[in-house]
Amino acid sequence: MKLRVGIIGAGPSGMAQLRAFESARQLGADIPEIVCFEKQSDWGGQWNSSWRTGLDAAGEPVHSSMYRHLWSNGPKECLEFADYTFDEHFGRPISSYPPREVLFDYIKGRVEKSDVRKYVRFNTTARWVSYNEQTQEFTVTVEDLAAQKTETHVFDKLVVSVGHFSVPHVPQFDGINSFPGEVLHAHDFRGAERFAGKDLLLIGSSYSAEDIGMQSHKMGAKSVTFSYRSGPMGFDWPESAVERPLVTRFEGRTAHFSDGTTGEFDAVVLCTGYQHKYPFLPAELSLKSKNVLYPGNLYKGVIWQDNTNLFYLGAQDQYYTFNMFDAQAWFARDVMLGRIELPAAEERAADIQVWLERQDALPDHDAEADYQTDYLRELIALTDYPEFDLDTVSALFKQWMKDKEDDILGYRDNIHRSVMTGTMAARHHTRWINAMDDSLQRYLNGPSQDVDTGALTALTRDDEQIAAK
Amino acid sequence: MKLRVGIIGAGPSGMAQLRAFESARQLGADIPEIVCFEKQSDWGGQWNSSWRTGLDAAGEPVHSSMYRHLWSNGPKECLEFADYTFDEHFGRPISSYPPREVLFDYIKGRVEKSDVRKYVRFNTTARWVSYNEQTQEFTVTVEDLAAQKTETHVFDKLVVSVGHFSVPHVPQFDGINSFPGEVLHAHDFRGAERFAGKDLLLIGSSYSAEDIGMQSHKMGAKSVTFSYRSGPMGFDWPESAVERPLVTRFEGRTAHFSDGTTGEFDAVVLCTGYQHKYPFLPAELSLKSKNVLYPGNLYKGVIWQDNTNLFYLGAQDQYYTFNMFDAQAWFARDVMLGRIELPAAEERAADIQVWLERQDALPDHDAEADYQTDYLRELIALTDYPEFDLDTVSALFKQWMKDKEDDILGYRDNIHRSVMTGTMAARHHTRWINAMDDSLQRYLNGPSQDVDTGALTALTRDDEQIAAK
Repeated sequence: MKLRVGIIGAGPSGMAQLRAFESARQLGADIPEIVCFEKQSDWGGQWNSSWRTGLDAAGEPVHSSMYRHLWSNGPKECLEFADYTFDEHFGRPISSYPPREVLFDYIKGRVEKSDVRKYVRFNTTARWVSYNEQTQEFTVTVEDLAAQKTETHVFDKLVVSVGHFSVPHVPQFDGINSFPGEVLHAHDFRGAERFAGKDLLLIGSSYSAEDIGMQSHKMGAKSVTFSYRSGPMGFDWPESAVERPLVTRFEGRTAHFSDGTTGEFDAVVLCTGYQHKYPFLPAELSLKSKNVLYPGNLYKGVIWQDNTNLFYLGAQDQYYTFNMFDAQAWFARDVMLGRIELPAAEERAADIQVWLERQDALPDHDAEADYQTDYLRELIALTDYPEFDLDTVSALFKQWMKDKEDDILGYRDNIHRSVMTGTMAARHHTRWINAMDDSLQRYLNGPSQDVDTGALTALTRDDEQIAAK
Repeated sequence: MKLRVGIIGAGPSGMAQLRAFESARQLGADIPEIVCFEKQSDWGGQWNSSWRTGLDAAGEPVHSSMYRHLWSNGPKECLEFADYTFDEHFGRPISSYPPREVLFDYIKGRVEKSDVRKYVRFNTTARWVSYNEQTQEFTVTVEDLAAQKTETHVFDKLVVSVGHFSVPHVPQFDGINSFPGEVLHAHDFRGAERFAGKDLLLIGSSYSAEDIGMQSHKMGAKSVTFSYRSGPMGFDWPESAVERPLVTRFEGRTAHFSDGTTGEFDAVVLCTGYQHKYPFLPAELSLKSKNVLYPGNLYKGVIWQDNTNLFYLGAQDQYYTFNMFDAQAWFARDVMLGRIELPAAEERAADIQVWLERQDALPDHDAEADYQTDYLRELIALTDYPEFDLDTVSALFKQWMKDKEDDILGYRDNIHRSVMTGTMAARHHTRWINAMDDSLQRYLNGPSQDVDTGALTALTRDDEQIAAK
């Protein structure tokens, strides 16, 4: 009987797993029976964003945390697929920090070309997984949300690729229940237009706070206040933005901070992170982790230590994204196909331990980028995933962090060179701070003179500034 | 072996089921082993409201759809328990339309007195239910959210009491993905303060739209526009409120209505109802129904026709609430205890059919109230739940609907007489339109002169108006 592989989630990680098997098939391998369950009506996970918040049309938790006017916050050269380049997809150089729809188009392009959509059961959500130790089989109970039918499927291997930036972590704050303005988690943020002229409080000091804060500034927020627990982000913020320590309580629309200062706010966005949450898995198969570069209990960051028939993709905090999911998916594939022999439990545990100890000793963000680079290097060496110049990518991560330090509102206007093709990115026609249309069409076709005269004028000014540099 | 009863949900319906068994125990009955699973940390269901929206602290969908400044939208005399009166709980007359916290206090009072909290597993959510036809047993897999542990429990009878006003029905509207203001479903509405000075669009024409609209008017919304699919509510709205037919599309902040009119809005609240959703149940045990007074497939509105070991409480649309859940819970209890013998499937189907046909012929809201009154009458006659004057309650529902027609902003200031005790309600110290503090403390202790001078002034003016009537 053919090996049976179940994949839960058709976001970037699940798509990478489909592509990994397809790539082997094209090279003549006998690949398993594959079924991928995706609760949304299309693939793309986070990138398949929605205006909806909370629960979706089927009453399932909304998956994507993305929003209008979300532009990549890292260079596309750091996430480029080694087997499907931006040049191949777009046929010409594009900028280094494209908006969501452009990247969504890119990741769809590869899998559409690969004819793997047939493996995906859309509108189908995993309800419950059980594992039979005797038969070494997973029974996956799913609900076809459109047909409202329950089905069970049996698999030899199970890949969990549902991501971990979809279920918000929302702490409690005294008095927040009577804060009169809007209170939402970053997961439910869909656009900053409504914060124009408003005093906005963002609780948190990571990517969500930084980006939603600057989105709101761009859209005309009167002021942006960041509140941090451990330390400030310390960017060179615009004048209307400020960082304060943690909110201790709310009193009406007044927030009290731990340094004794106060502020009055119109809205609060809780940029307080996400939880790992796998409601379809029994606790003993469920990864419990903070958002770290190396969650424990996963061999090579992928294989569940206590049950090596279970695979997690993308469960790490991420410098690398799409190409890391690839490296993991190729590795998972080759383990499933028997091309890679798994060491014994003790040896796997020792390997995990080495990574965990090294993680504990990481001194700074630069070291973190190197750490994840080394992780990729190790995975890629194990499979036929195309090798690429990882050291240059790691250097680019460091450059990117420096660029953000230099100019938090302007770093997205920088351009970088692809390590896959050597192609230098094209400068975008409009500076990020002036780009008010994030559609694929406008991105590719240039600023519209009849609609976006503001952007066009800005472009002219920008180009002068750029020329003057 | 003792009968084993599982109850999913400790809201008003689940609490009624606990109380029903406790009531039998006090009269000497041998009651089953009972376990009630409640995902929240306290009981009360909808009444245990939260500032949170979307997903809760544990990453589970937020249950309650209630909000700050929610006052009962029906007379408390229509929902009073026959075995635990408002007089018994509060020791003195209170008004007919109390705020959420007051009613929450009332429903907690009865079960706290009954010593049934020991049956409830809090912070525990049902993940998956399976039914074994051979053994006639339910296996219920739950997750202890605090301990992050999976457990399985086996039951002979299963009561589903999770309600059906928690999972929003959210239709799609063209252009809503780029509406620049806040867009939320009524389920996520937590207070109208932030709509002061705003132009608000409410899509829907039932209780949510009506109440959130008038809450927003009370809190100073500049305008309130209701958009209906089938027909307008037709109340005597304040001047700043208007009804329009259905939105056909959004263009920026402009809504286009099907009558060709347009309007510009700052925020949209989708008051588009709720779906029956039981993600822990296999499809074949899962009630699929619109929000109607008599869902099909439930004998006496309670017992799953295809598996009489499965009970649904509160699955109907509701004129009656707390005392209807009681009547259902007492009936379910007596069926489980063998005190009521179930007729054969064919006879049950015929009984369901009679109710469905009568439902189809209901001409108006008054007839609906009578219909549900007759339903209660039939249930109550089958058990030892205390009988009460249902015809007077039904007349009160009709009076209530008339009062709303007469004065949508003032109907909550009316007072009514309890059919349980004969006690006339007390007039509240502040008119609803002026009441800006909905706490239990303020409700019971009267307006505060130092804080709520506005309310106090208003009270004086109101009292003059009331006296002048």
